[in-house]
Amino acid sequence: MPASVLIAVDEPTAIGVLTLNRPEQRNPLSVAAMREVTLGLKTLSAEPAVRVIVIRAEGPVFSAGHNLREMIGRTLEEERAVFDTCTEMMQTVQSVPQPVIASVQGTAVAAGCQLVASCDLAVSSSTAVFGTPGVKIGLFCSTPMVAVSRAIGRKRALQMLLTGETIDAHTAADWGLVNFVVDPEGLETATTELASKIVGASPATLKIGKEAFYQQIDLPQDQAYEAMGETMAQNAMICDAQEGMTAFVEKRAPVWQGR
Amino acid sequence: MPASVLIAVDEPTAIGVLTLNRPEQRNPLSVAAMREVTLGLKTLSAEPAVRVIVIRAEGPVFSAGHNLREMIGRTLEEERAVFDTCTEMMQTVQSVPQPVIASVQGTAVAAGCQLVASCDLAVSSSTAVFGTPGVKIGLFCSTPMVAVSRAIGRKRALQMLLTGETIDAHTAADWGLVNFVVDPEGLETATTELASKIVGASPATLKIGKEAFYQQIDLPQDQAYEAMGETMAQNAMICDAQEGMTAFVEKRAPVWQGR
Amino acid sequence: MPASVLIAVDEPTAIGVLTLNRPEQRNPLSVAAMREVTLGLKTLSAEPAVRVIVIRAEGPVFSAGHNLREMIGRTLEEERAVFDTCTEMMQTVQSVPQPVIASVQGTAVAAGCQLVASCDLAVSSSTAVFGTPGVKIGLFCSTPMVAVSRAIGRKRALQMLLTGETIDAHTAADWGLVNFVVDPEGLETATTELASKIVGASPATLKIGKEAFYQQIDLPQDQAYEAMGETMAQNAMICDAQEGMTAFVEKRAPVWQGR
Repeated sequence: MPASVLIAVDEPTAIGVLTLNRPEQRNPLSVAAMREVTLGLKTLSAEPAVRVIVIRAEGPVFSAGHNLREMIGRTLEEERAVFDTCTEMMQTVQSVPQPVIASVQGTAVAAGCQLVASCDLAVSSSTAVFGTPGVKIGLFCSTPMVAVSRAIGRKRALQMLLTGETIDAHTAADWGLVNFVVDPEGLETATTELASKIVGASPATLKIGKEAFYQQIDLPQDQAYEAMGETMAQNAMICDAQEGMTAFVEKRAPVWQGR
Repeated sequence: MPASVLIAVDEPTAIGVLTLNRPEQRNPLSVAAMREVTLGLKTLSAEPAVRVIVIRAEGPVFSAGHNLREMIGRTLEEERAVFDTCTEMMQTVQSVPQPVIASVQGTAVAAGCQLVASCDLAVSSSTAVFGTPGVKIGLFCSTPMVAVSRAIGRKRALQMLLTGETIDAHTAADWGLVNFVVDPEGLETATTELASKIVGASPATLKIGKEAFYQQIDLPQDQAYEAMGETMAQNAMICDAQEGMTAFVEKRAPVWQGR
Repeated sequence: MPASVLIAVDEPTAIGVLTLNRPEQRNPLSVAAMREVTLGLKTLSAEPAVRVIVIRAEGPVFSAGHNLREMIGRTLEEERAVFDTCTEMMQTVQSVPQPVIASVQGTAVAAGCQLVASCDLAVSSSTAVFGTPGVKIGLFCSTPMVAVSRAIGRKRALQMLLTGETIDAHTAADWGLVNFVVDPEGLETATTELASKIVGASPATLKIGKEAFYQQIDLPQDQAYEAMGETMAQNAMICDAQEGMTAFVEKRAPVWQGR
């Protein structure tokens, strides 16, 4: 049986690629698969060559979410383990220093939709759909809604959560769940193009910035300013910032120290 | 004099309907009317047959907001009582276990706009308008802005609040204040159709999900995940979730336990 | 050398105008310029004739952000001073009692984009662009993102922050960063028209409302309602509110007490 998750480093583009690889099973986020995703993200993020990580999937479905067979007839402890593993995966997407881009070729529902919402950026095929259908099977998408409601706002999140109906890719872009929608045949190119706008940046700066983003987004504005003022002052002292500012003033390309 | 508020249960559709019934007075949210709404919501929510609640209104105006005559020449204690009663009504909309849909046929301003913003979902006639015009009469819409700014974001909320001007229904949909806009003659059908997508769900699951939504939306993401992981694990243990997941795996329709 | 910042009071329109006046240097927000903006805002806000403040700029660029020359080869204390001064300016925009409108005629990037995001309202020329390009020079726009991410949401903010690319004015309006987009030649008129919808309001009410907006936006909903219920009850007791409500009931124009 093939691995649930494949990882690869594309050296020329500096992109680390994580592929959900159980297309016949609709790329379920079983406990094993979620552990593989978390491990895969950490492995890719430790590679010096990787400046951006892309999460993509094989087959017509991006991910159908949790494996229901792992949630029927289980103890409360076992149920908790499913969601703890899931939350760890979602938090890893946001805690690795490199930007993570979801490249969504098909249906992304429940924890699959949550994974897209949790990525820093997302590119979607026009044929993809997004949903939180748990309500239809008696299990409300309460953990997916943490990420989805923070991405698209209250009324729209409640519409997805309470009706369980999917939205199409253009609606997802209109609501801020994904950044770009392209024709299916252009998805890989569009994903690589978006990544290419990031890979040239200083890795040290991207690490500071991504960590700072998630730190400040949940703070009251005054506390956010206090924290970010210090973050930005510290950032200004690092070599890559001094080099970047000097290069800009001197109208030349900067040379980063690497990571 | 007719009651300010009518309630009715439509057994075939499982919809509880609350109607603002003072069309000649533009459905004012007087203290008495707000108490009737709160009581009506609680009464409908206690009906086993009610799976979704719709708030609608008679006449050309959905609601013009508070009754100003109750706020002129009053003591501070009396003013406080108006807003306490109002906040209790708005919080009841969100605390009853059934989803609440606003069905907006006309002008919804001040506390009337707040009521729409507070509902879980909203369907609007294309002829409806929405506003927070208190600034024009010296009384800034400070309690309405709690709900409105959380629905549509900062710049757009400030535009409504500082200018006092209304926005049309399509703008309200574009900004996330309402979910759907339809022709006036299609409003009732569209509201029933939206409700029909929810009434088939497990009442126990809807109750868990709606309560969880409002619990998590105000928490920092990490705390939200911690709370929702436990909520979803507990949800997975209830009979309706076990039945729903099993029915899905067996490709049959689920049979809920009811409430 | 001309002043970095000009202030003027236009008595007929009751608009206080603050102009960024270093067009040849792309209106840099140097420490000196930021102090001038803060002082200018406080000076304008103390003028009884000023009911609305407009921030505009001379030249093709609204503001290119910080002066990089002040951030190269400096101590950590000096870097901190830059961001402290910046945060004080942004907070002053929101703490002066009058509404502040950004009138954006051209490129607004980094702290220049943050300034637009921090204003209560914004009108933009269709030729303006907005961005947070710090990532390209090794200095992530961590303080700008406090204002920008609160205005436009997570995925869109991360797109601007991680790619460093600008968005056009129509996208900025679609995302809620600005309220209105107009042809370049119509910018001044559109700004004045927006201001004219506000200047007729009671200054005391605007002061209460603006302060309340920023107080409640960062609170959990229940706490926001508690605070705003008291704010609105107190607001109802002031003369301008009693006059405004009475005038409305009597179908006449209100006469405010002034400030």
